[in-house]
Amino acid sequence: MARRPGRNFLFVPGPTNVPDRVLRAMMVAQEDHRSPIFPELIKPAFEGLKKVYKTTEGQVFIFPSSGTGGWEAALANTLAPGDKVLNSRFGQFSHLWTDMAQRLGLDVQVLEEEWGTGAHEEKIEEALTKDTAHEIKAVMVVHNETATGVTSNIAAIRKAMDNAKHPALLLVDSVSGLGSIDFRFDEWKVDCAVSGSQKGLMLPAGLGFVAVSQKALNLRKNSKLNKVYFDFQDHINTNGSGYFPYTPATNLFHGLREALRCIEEEGLENIFHRHAVLARATRAAVDAWGLKLCAKSERWHSDTVSAIVVPEGIDAAKIIRHAYDRYNLALGAGLSKVAGKVFRIGHIGDLNELMLLGAIAGAEMAMLDNGVNIKAGSGVGAAQDYLRDNPIERQAATPKAA
Amino acid sequence: MARRPGRNFLFVPGPTNVPDRVLRAMMVAQEDHRSPIFPELIKPAFEGLKKVYKTTEGQVFIFPSSGTGGWEAALANTLAPGDKVLNSRFGQFSHLWTDMAQRLGLDVQVLEEEWGTGAHEEKIEEALTKDTAHEIKAVMVVHNETATGVTSNIAAIRKAMDNAKHPALLLVDSVSGLGSIDFRFDEWKVDCAVSGSQKGLMLPAGLGFVAVSQKALNLRKNSKLNKVYFDFQDHINTNGSGYFPYTPATNLFHGLREALRCIEEEGLENIFHRHAVLARATRAAVDAWGLKLCAKSERWHSDTVSAIVVPEGIDAAKIIRHAYDRYNLALGAGLSKVAGKVFRIGHIGDLNELMLLGAIAGAEMAMLDNGVNIKAGSGVGAAQDYLRDNPIERQAATPKAA
Amino acid sequence: MARRPGRNFLFVPGPTNVPDRVLRAMMVAQEDHRSPIFPELIKPAFEGLKKVYKTTEGQVFIFPSSGTGGWEAALANTLAPGDKVLNSRFGQFSHLWTDMAQRLGLDVQVLEEEWGTGAHEEKIEEALTKDTAHEIKAVMVVHNETATGVTSNIAAIRKAMDNAKHPALLLVDSVSGLGSIDFRFDEWKVDCAVSGSQKGLMLPAGLGFVAVSQKALNLRKNSKLNKVYFDFQDHINTNGSGYFPYTPATNLFHGLREALRCIEEEGLENIFHRHAVLARATRAAVDAWGLKLCAKSERWHSDTVSAIVVPEGIDAAKIIRHAYDRYNLALGAGLSKVAGKVFRIGHIGDLNELMLLGAIAGAEMAMLDNGVNIKAGSGVGAAQDYLRDNPIERQAATPKAA
Amino acid sequence: MARRPGRNFLFVPGPTNVPDRVLRAMMVAQEDHRSPIFPELIKPAFEGLKKVYKTTEGQVFIFPSSGTGGWEAALANTLAPGDKVLNSRFGQFSHLWTDMAQRLGLDVQVLEEEWGTGAHEEKIEEALTKDTAHEIKAVMVVHNETATGVTSNIAAIRKAMDNAKHPALLLVDSVSGLGSIDFRFDEWKVDCAVSGSQKGLMLPAGLGFVAVSQKALNLRKNSKLNKVYFDFQDHINTNGSGYFPYTPATNLFHGLREALRCIEEEGLENIFHRHAVLARATRAAVDAWGLKLCAKSERWHSDTVSAIVVPEGIDAAKIIRHAYDRYNLALGAGLSKVAGKVFRIGHIGDLNELMLLGAIAGAEMAMLDNGVNIKAGSGVGAAQDYLRDNPIERQAATPKAA
Repeated sequence: MARRPGRNFLFVPGPTNVPDRVLRAMMVAQEDHRSPIFPELIKPAFEGLKKVYKTTEGQVFIFPSSGTGGWEAALANTLAPGDKVLNSRFGQFSHLWTDMAQRLGLDVQVLEEEWGTGAHEEKIEEALTKDTAHEIKAVMVVHNETATGVTSNIAAIRKAMDNAKHPALLLVDSVSGLGSIDFRFDEWKVDCAVSGSQKGLMLPAGLGFVAVSQKALNLRKNSKLNKVYFDFQDHINTNGSGYFPYTPATNLFHGLREALRCIEEEGLENIFHRHAVLARATRAAVDAWGLKLCAKSERWHSDTVSAIVVPEGIDAAKIIRHAYDRYNLALGAGLSKVAGKVFRIGHIGDLNELMLLGAIAGAEMAMLDNGVNIKAGSGVGAAQDYLRDNPIERQAATPKAA
Repeated sequence: MARRPGRNFLFVPGPTNVPDRVLRAMMVAQEDHRSPIFPELIKPAFEGLKKVYKTTEGQVFIFPSSGTGGWEAALANTLAPGDKVLNSRFGQFSHLWTDMAQRLGLDVQVLEEEWGTGAHEEKIEEALTKDTAHEIKAVMVVHNETATGVTSNIAAIRKAMDNAKHPALLLVDSVSGLGSIDFRFDEWKVDCAVSGSQKGLMLPAGLGFVAVSQKALNLRKNSKLNKVYFDFQDHINTNGSGYFPYTPATNLFHGLREALRCIEEEGLENIFHRHAVLARATRAAVDAWGLKLCAKSERWHSDTVSAIVVPEGIDAAKIIRHAYDRYNLALGAGLSKVAGKVFRIGHIGDLNELMLLGAIAGAEMAMLDNGVNIKAGSGVGAAQDYLRDNPIERQAATPKAA
Repeated sequence: MARRPGRNFLFVPGPTNVPDRVLRAMMVAQEDHRSPIFPELIKPAFEGLKKVYKTTEGQVFIFPSSGTGGWEAALANTLAPGDKVLNSRFGQFSHLWTDMAQRLGLDVQVLEEEWGTGAHEEKIEEALTKDTAHEIKAVMVVHNETATGVTSNIAAIRKAMDNAKHPALLLVDSVSGLGSIDFRFDEWKVDCAVSGSQKGLMLPAGLGFVAVSQKALNLRKNSKLNKVYFDFQDHINTNGSGYFPYTPATNLFHGLREALRCIEEEGLENIFHRHAVLARATRAAVDAWGLKLCAKSERWHSDTVSAIVVPEGIDAAKIIRHAYDRYNLALGAGLSKVAGKVFRIGHIGDLNELMLLGAIAGAEMAMLDNGVNIKAGSGVGAAQDYLRDNPIERQAATPKAA
Repeated sequence: MARRPGRNFLFVPGPTNVPDRVLRAMMVAQEDHRSPIFPELIKPAFEGLKKVYKTTEGQVFIFPSSGTGGWEAALANTLAPGDKVLNSRFGQFSHLWTDMAQRLGLDVQVLEEEWGTGAHEEKIEEALTKDTAHEIKAVMVVHNETATGVTSNIAAIRKAMDNAKHPALLLVDSVSGLGSIDFRFDEWKVDCAVSGSQKGLMLPAGLGFVAVSQKALNLRKNSKLNKVYFDFQDHINTNGSGYFPYTPATNLFHGLREALRCIEEEGLENIFHRHAVLARATRAAVDAWGLKLCAKSERWHSDTVSAIVVPEGIDAAKIIRHAYDRYNLALGAGLSKVAGKVFRIGHIGDLNELMLLGAIAGAEMAMLDNGVNIKAGSGVGAAQDYLRDNPIERQAATPKAA
């Protein structure tokens, strides 16, 4: 294939755009992961991630894995075969987590929700209230369903659990939420929160993260699900002194250190604000096009990804392929139930206004080229109007380190 | 300062956007520039540049310098103190080259042209025709005047010189033209053509290039202008075997090798086509805004940079500063005579449609925020319409190497 | 801490020294792992690894994990809870694999061997011959025991299994062998061969590899050990078209592509030869020092790591720490039973004579500084003599690609 | 050619080994060299270089050039055609500087010194004392003659000039000295001190530096030698606000910032100490081999490069070529008068003990393979003995920045 000039516009909801300085930081010579100075790299990584999770009480685990590995760690270290878990299903990732739980031998009570909505806290409360025997050992929730662009309200779910006075664990997938939209591990009394490096953390893929409450940690002896690679205990034995039970992905840790610096310099609340602004600008463009989001109402709007429903008779897959081939724009495909019906714009990671406007312009052209009846420049113009009124810089952030 | 999220949109007319693979190629350990294998890096660089210059007869010199160094080399190796040269002046860079010639002790006959126009071949012909004594030793021309976005017609100037049957050398500055717009060293019988690494060659700054005809080379013994660093002779003595008279900028040579591969993979004619398309899309946006270019007519339109005149009463410098501060967009400032009156969009280097549309969107917002009466999305929309009809990929290029 | 000048000499048996070009190759912008061109990166990786494994019949799996993850995948996909497995134990890594098997619910029959020896094929044959009921489902062997610098003879073990006419699977850990010492998956009829990226493959840590025979693959439906992340089936469903069931560690794949090119350019047999030469030079130094290897006899000598026994009364840990602090040399520590008694020199990965001689010189100084009675320069001199007589370049390798 | 495993051992006296972090720092996207934030990169570079030069009164100029360009700038900005200058010649670089001065139209009074010695301050004093008319406008000295491994005593030369009460300028080439051996611009009342990026500054080649005294600066109006590219005045006009008269080599400035941080973290005096220790270890090896340095006596020993005389009947060029081809070791060749008679070990830049010992081991093998009668390990052993007694870390340096 001939060389493609210029940069690819990466607007899938992960892997996300990563700052060059993070990539640079990773380009280091190999090192002994048992050296006396290795802990200087490792210990601050755990501390930094705890700030991102907003936890002081939980413990964070880092695996050389994807977020899927983090899911498995969360389940395998807290539950036993045959345990009942409750899971709301409303998209591809909440589906896959259900599937994993079943394959690991858990008994999953699925709350089916319409795709385009999320975890209904009222239904969770109802289910838990009914479970007077406390057979449900854990509530599994996907915080941000990447497939449909839907965010569930974890605070409300915690409240529902409290209302039901139910002792189940709260296990949350925030793979495409953490670091981009607000997440409060301690305040929301989350028990396991799973994430990955390639989304809001602005790193290449290869690290899975799990924050774990003391309540959940205490269950690990009884968990009885086979695991070694993902066993918290082996990590507990070594992490404290700055080491790992097996060779960690050292270069990614150098990237993680730099990514955490980026987050600190911009400021976590500023980052949430920026994602909110860029998401709203995207939704302004969708409105201007006269199209609908997959998310059924504002209640469910995700600030990291928008799934856009194409008009009847149009194949979203063709738009996506054309955007890639003709305009070097990577859009997210519709998955499973919404395949061919939606395309997704990921507005997550290291992103700014002009990057987004370039992507919106590209989506616009790809739609026009595929017969969608919109006006060139209309979505861009609406997004511009929004962005002019709403700066992505919420406030002066912490001063940049030297 | 707080961290700025996302990428800077670099739309000055150089330094240009450089492919990541070129940057990567430069990140090599240091090496002995007198090693037996060093020529394997150097010799193909000369050959590759000759293809970009479209010369088989000329010789290329590579200096650790900017393009300004290339200017000095071109003058100092071909002329003697007091020699008369003819130079059309119509912008900041044609002015500076005049200034250099004067400071080097040359007698410059300046053809003053209105800024926004370029070198008028008819006036050059007239001047040369009058010079029956052949006192004019060289015609100096800036191929692409970066300050005003004006391209002069080198083929026409050669024809004018031929018409006048004048033996003067033809010295051309194609710093912001070479590798982006067509340049035909042999066909146009150019004698010295100066360029630099940080424009169409898609490299960081630090290398100056000069292609030199045999006719010009033959004059070097009589040149009598003092020089050592820029002396062609020292390079002739060593370049043939793949070495240099002093330590070359070795890392940039690794970048140059990769940049030449990029050029070959995309194809030089395809690159020219791409620049033409992106330039026209930019001009479509300017039209849609109801604004004018600094270039007075289509005859002078540059395909690598557009200087856009802002309405009376608006300070272009404020737009530029605002674009940088608020939208992370680097636009070119108006220089000298046109300071405050124009801003410039450089559309040169490793660029594609969405990058350009992001920049146009940014310029649009910066103008709106500064009181220019245009409609959000109007320029983007016009550019999109043009780009949808005119793919930047002219044709299948040469297959990519493994 | 103050800046340490110069390079760290990394002579642990992994992570190994990685060519700069591999690091460079990894420094790429993020990309959509579901893009149409992603398979162009992935498919050749599987093919290249098969060449390194010397298999045409086996299938290779690549996990975002360490080698430990590969171990777990090998066991979890081929065995059922309660299955009996046979494992020779003679070092820290053969111990840990036993431990994993037990924790996964397998019934491990351990053949205890003296540390410094390896898997005794004759004892394996005896055990299998006794097992007339074929209760043993798998023979687990560590090819190269990194803790003691011992290599077992996999070909001989295969012969022992054939002699016993036993149908057990042959599961091999070649984490610190593959790509550095000969490994013949098909010829030796290995069923699972586990490796990792950070050893002979000359990559940063983060990828686990498992080559799997068709015989082993066919058992996956009956494996009954819980797994999702490491489930071969999910990978089989997606790998064929160039994708993965979850986000792969994309940047490491760019490194893997380049590392495989490095291997092809040098030539696999040349690489084995080079490791053999450097290992022998190391052993010549140990002889000259008058010290002994942990490996009890030539039969067990490893070509990727030498564990050197320090004299009575000397604490090897102090030598290692001093080498690191004073000479910036990372040596491998003695683990478990041999802690304090040995230090290890890893001579694996992207290494040449002068790097090794620098490390030997450093080990020499660190021993002298800690009271070991040897002569400065003695080990280096012996290694030099060997190296002068035995070039690391066995033969002209395949021509370098452009 | 087949891939060469491992690292090249770079022991020429420049380009030197550069810390990876400096290379990483250079790998940044291009930027507008007229942006509002560009001065944040530039201004500290000037300040940092002044510390390395030990000047508060002088002004530093940075050119996109080699050190040769710095030479030309020093001469062209301070002297007029026909001016008389005094230059001691005792090696290839002091010869080339003489040659440049002559080609620029200066009248050079050459003090010929035996190669292997340096600038004899007593002869300079004598010449200046004789010059009662003060016709000599400048004394040119090469601080560290790279060709022969000879260091001249600049403090003593200043004293000689003061003794002679002569107003001539003191122009010093410290290309291979600055940043590695002590240099005191203010204390020694140097007027121009030339250096380059690729030696003690631990950067890739491409930047030339000149520190200039106020006395020398005041002469620039009368200098009358033609120059534009190297004209101090254009830089004075722009440097103060953080800009340049033409496009600077921006990526190298990012490297310069990081290199200056490296220097600050290690501490300049510690760096000098380290170079002294490594140089003495090298000389201990030469002694042990029973060979002689080109430098005639301790008075002239250079701490950045040792030129080693091979025995009669041996061709040093063959040793150098063999070291490169067989052991991947780059040694410096003998230049001009000493071609074939010496090989050079550069011990300058980012270097530590084990790197040096690897190089000494390599030189040893290359000599043995070419018939030099030495004992394997002898030079290494002597250097080890010296290094064990003399740590390269003189003292705790300034704490490392975060």
